[in-house]
Amino acid sequence: MEERKIKVGITHGDINGIGYEVILKTFADPAMFDLCTPVIYGSPKVAAYHRKAMDIPTNFSIVASAADAQEGKLNIVNCIEEEVKVELTKPTPEGGRAALLALERALAEYREGYFDVLVTAPINKSTIQSDDFHFPGHTEYIEQRVGNGQKALMILLKDDFRVALVTGHIPVSEISKDITKELIKEKLAIFHRSLKQDFNIDSPRIAVFSLNPHAGDEGLLGTEEQTVITPAIQEMAEEGVLCFGPYPADGFMGSGNHTHFDGILAMYHDQGLAPFKALAMDEGVNFTAGLPIVRTSPAHGTAYDIAGQGIASEDSFRQAVYVAIDVFRHRCIEREISAHPLRKQYYEKRDDSDKLKLDTIDED
Amino acid sequence: MEERKIKVGITHGDINGIGYEVILKTFADPAMFDLCTPVIYGSPKVAAYHRKAMDIPTNFSIVASAADAQEGKLNIVNCIEEEVKVELTKPTPEGGRAALLALERALAEYREGYFDVLVTAPINKSTIQSDDFHFPGHTEYIEQRVGNGQKALMILLKDDFRVALVTGHIPVSEISKDITKELIKEKLAIFHRSLKQDFNIDSPRIAVFSLNPHAGDEGLLGTEEQTVITPAIQEMAEEGVLCFGPYPADGFMGSGNHTHFDGILAMYHDQGLAPFKALAMDEGVNFTAGLPIVRTSPAHGTAYDIAGQGIASEDSFRQAVYVAIDVFRHRCIEREISAHPLRKQYYEKRDDSDKLKLDTIDED
Repeated sequence: MEERKIKVGITHGDINGIGYEVILKTFADPAMFDLCTPVIYGSPKVAAYHRKAMDIPTNFSIVASAADAQEGKLNIVNCIEEEVKVELTKPTPEGGRAALLALERALAEYREGYFDVLVTAPINKSTIQSDDFHFPGHTEYIEQRVGNGQKALMILLKDDFRVALVTGHIPVSEISKDITKELIKEKLAIFHRSLKQDFNIDSPRIAVFSLNPHAGDEGLLGTEEQTVITPAIQEMAEEGVLCFGPYPADGFMGSGNHTHFDGILAMYHDQGLAPFKALAMDEGVNFTAGLPIVRTSPAHGTAYDIAGQGIASEDSFRQAVYVAIDVFRHRCIEREISAHPLRKQYYEKRDDSDKLKLDTIDED
Repeated sequence: MEERKIKVGITHGDINGIGYEVILKTFADPAMFDLCTPVIYGSPKVAAYHRKAMDIPTNFSIVASAADAQEGKLNIVNCIEEEVKVELTKPTPEGGRAALLALERALAEYREGYFDVLVTAPINKSTIQSDDFHFPGHTEYIEQRVGNGQKALMILLKDDFRVALVTGHIPVSEISKDITKELIKEKLAIFHRSLKQDFNIDSPRIAVFSLNPHAGDEGLLGTEEQTVITPAIQEMAEEGVLCFGPYPADGFMGSGNHTHFDGILAMYHDQGLAPFKALAMDEGVNFTAGLPIVRTSPAHGTAYDIAGQGIASEDSFRQAVYVAIDVFRHRCIEREISAHPLRKQYYEKRDDSDKLKLDTIDED
């Protein structure tokens, strides 16, 4: 496997939030440059503004594109020609436009192969809306622009705790009708593949949440468990995906059950993210699985309430850089392994114990 | 305030789960009898079965009714005449019937004034259904039977962390249509009154969750925030209830924001309970606010998976007994205070800082 530095494209996100603060703080640590070569898609002027406002001792070098990025430096590509006004703590149309310009430039350069992985700082999902951006968030935008027709799956993770969602940025009133057997199967398939390819887990185990309270209490509190979720789990299990459930969501994390699985598939946004963030907010990372591009972001938002104060923690952003690098490496390993597959003669079929079974050697 | 021991009625719940285990373990500690006089509504035979199966050194005395309960002893009222078969770890119709008989007897004796507060061990919400029990859970049943026409509000709490729900045991598909301005206002009013009367908080502050992800992102992900929740908050605030929001649910507990409020009102079951239990499962208590009766229960369920093994923790059940006693005392204090109200002359109106304002003494 090649040992060159991984090039990390970084979009600056909303310029009035904590984006630049967490980026600059992350790369204040010289050890980061041993891991990767970062390239910010943003604005040198805005970066300088944040740098000065919070007295963050991080230098950066302006480059024309990621193709010119230098190792050992925090490179920045200017994506905003006109003057742009920073209004810390405020959602502004200018901030939305600046965020979108950076995203568009980053994806254009990604298509050219100028960098390896993308880490996005948080955007304001309202101000960024425009003729070119009609999406509820980064995930859907990136899926549409550089997904090559593949479907994205948003995974929130911290270490081995990984939560994915069947439905995401939709109103609660639409959850039930959007949840179909096909959609759950599709998400399970992407999650399964991602756990293998992106995290190198040989036989990943996935827990599936119920939609309704108490898993519908045998039909008293809803029937989707019986009509949709259980059939989806059974059909995927028959295809060799180790998936289990549906489990009632409310006590699952509280009982520590999440530690017994490699991934948890929740039915909707707050059901999965509220308990995940309760336990793992500070170092949580959002990873977009299922697409050719490796994209991560911190689990937090623009955090206007603390913007410009210098008190934002960069932990989640730094973890997002780490995860992007790890996933990129895992994919390289997976590709190397699958390029020359070994016959699995020493393993029993459909047994995930992962032990050598010397009494069952295939003798033909 | 009278210092007599508070009489705690306890229903045995499902006989095949961990109910008896946590009750017997709780009252294995003699210090509990300094606080209260417990009376189990259940079956001495079933209690003896669990006692023996798990070798729990707790004695109990059979009494004809709670009126005959003795201080210093774990009293038990036999509510089941016929033989009843215990089938540990299994939901059975007999188990459901036994749970209901105990509940009915307890409420009948409560109406007679034989005990002060009720603590319920977990039931199986499916097997208990019958001609006499058509409810999604204890809360609704108790509201109907001994609520005197008042509305119940389920509060999950651990110390100062209290979460209540606008909607409870309903399918996710019905949440949006069930959430109305009137319902939110009603729940806020009960929550507010309970925080004052049951927890003796003078000016309680309540955080209200949004229904949709990201509080609807200004209408992009749903409109109930704008049309229903915000108006409800504003109208209650005008009536003097210190309520705030709507806040997006997913990151609220993760950011520690719950520590800034006396109560959190979530819109639906998993939204409130999943993050609550993630943080406070082991010692969580379910309190039914809003009714004349003081009723609590542990936050866990029947836990069939570990029934009979002797490994269930009694922490949550013991906390449920503590909370019931505390609430009962707080109500007594509240009644004493409000029996002879002082004119609030030393306090500034609409100021919740709770400090003496000596410069604003009313001089008339």
